[in-house]
Amino acid sequence: MPQYHLIYFDARGRGELSRWLLEYGEIPYTEERISFGDWSVRKQTVPTGKVPILMIDGQPLAQSLAIARYLAKEVGLMPKDHLQAAFADALADSIAEMMAAFYKNKMSSLAEDEKEKKFHEEITPTIIRPLLGDLNERLAGRSWYASDQMSWVDLMIAVEFGGLRKSYPKLLDDFPEVAAHVDKAMALPSIKAWINRRPDTFI
Amino acid sequence: MPQYHLIYFDARGRGELSRWLLEYGEIPYTEERISFGDWSVRKQTVPTGKVPILMIDGQPLAQSLAIARYLAKEVGLMPKDHLQAAFADALADSIAEMMAAFYKNKMSSLAEDEKEKKFHEEITPTIIRPLLGDLNERLAGRSWYASDQMSWVDLMIAVEFGGLRKSYPKLLDDFPEVAAHVDKAMALPSIKAWINRRPDTFI
Repeated sequence: MPQYHLIYFDARGRGELSRWLLEYGEIPYTEERISFGDWSVRKQTVPTGKVPILMIDGQPLAQSLAIARYLAKEVGLMPKDHLQAAFADALADSIAEMMAAFYKNKMSSLAEDEKEKKFHEEITPTIIRPLLGDLNERLAGRSWYASDQMSWVDLMIAVEFGGLRKSYPKLLDDFPEVAAHVDKAMALPSIKAWINRRPDTFI
Repeated sequence: MPQYHLIYFDARGRGELSRWLLEYGEIPYTEERISFGDWSVRKQTVPTGKVPILMIDGQPLAQSLAIARYLAKEVGLMPKDHLQAAFADALADSIAEMMAAFYKNKMSSLAEDEKEKKFHEEITPTIIRPLLGDLNERLAGRSWYASDQMSWVDLMIAVEFGGLRKSYPKLLDDFPEVAAHVDKAMALPSIKAWINRRPDTFI
């Protein structure tokens, strides 16, 4: 098995799905967790100058979803069927777009109350709730998103919507299928153990 | 073989890579090409409300890269090796980020000369040229990006950098390996035939 070393911020964010996949597959790995304050310096020497990076036997693999898709194949969570894999990919890109809008607002220069206003009045109604609506409909009467087996995008649903729910506890109230899906993934033994073990500093 | 119907703007943009993959694989498909002016109305009835959409036997598949990855598998352009596929994925996401910055500027409310200034003074030096530098280095002494065989990301390199070069003819002057790679993909018989056949209105 290759040696895996994950480089990311000391936070959940775009690195967390890869951590879940590694934990789910019980794949040994080491981590470097960079504080936001150190980033401007550390950026100079991190391969590719971006995080997350997964070092695989010393070779850098960039882009969070490329890392996740690679690990999904390694741990048996990539659908073999082309169309099922494609539906997982499409949802992953839509969730990533949603999170990009979320982070862009969070990291913007707006005052905190302006950020909250923008989150509730713009991002939630135009991006988050439409996606939750489609997802809730799709998950009704299905065990997993892409096929009759769990895939990497089921973990992504839980990582991202579970993360948002932590900050906004009522976010999933109108989408019970999604809420149950998040809970189901978080109850997987390897994931539950990771969540209990990960640093409290993780926001 | 499923029935394929591609819905996109009457333009190259995010739909063009999927067209190249369909043409490369000699897969029959139909198209609906929407004019920008009709979009606000057509958006109401296009499945998912976004384009490109590939209808596969009437089922909508969204997200340009999910469509491209699906078609790549169907036409034999997805690397079987997990790591080679991952390097292709990572480059695809980096090119997509670059094009998102390009389109964001192009579609912004800035005056045309302000857009050109921003393209040359911000987007080119901070996003496009660093990516071209890495790509040029990688392609030196290699026939294809991800492995010793052509993959879907080689077509993406040609679609996107070839498209930018059409608007900015000197863009690749310092990156001869990339320029040669673009030319090589555009000279593939099926691709060459498509480029000669596609509407002149395509910008």
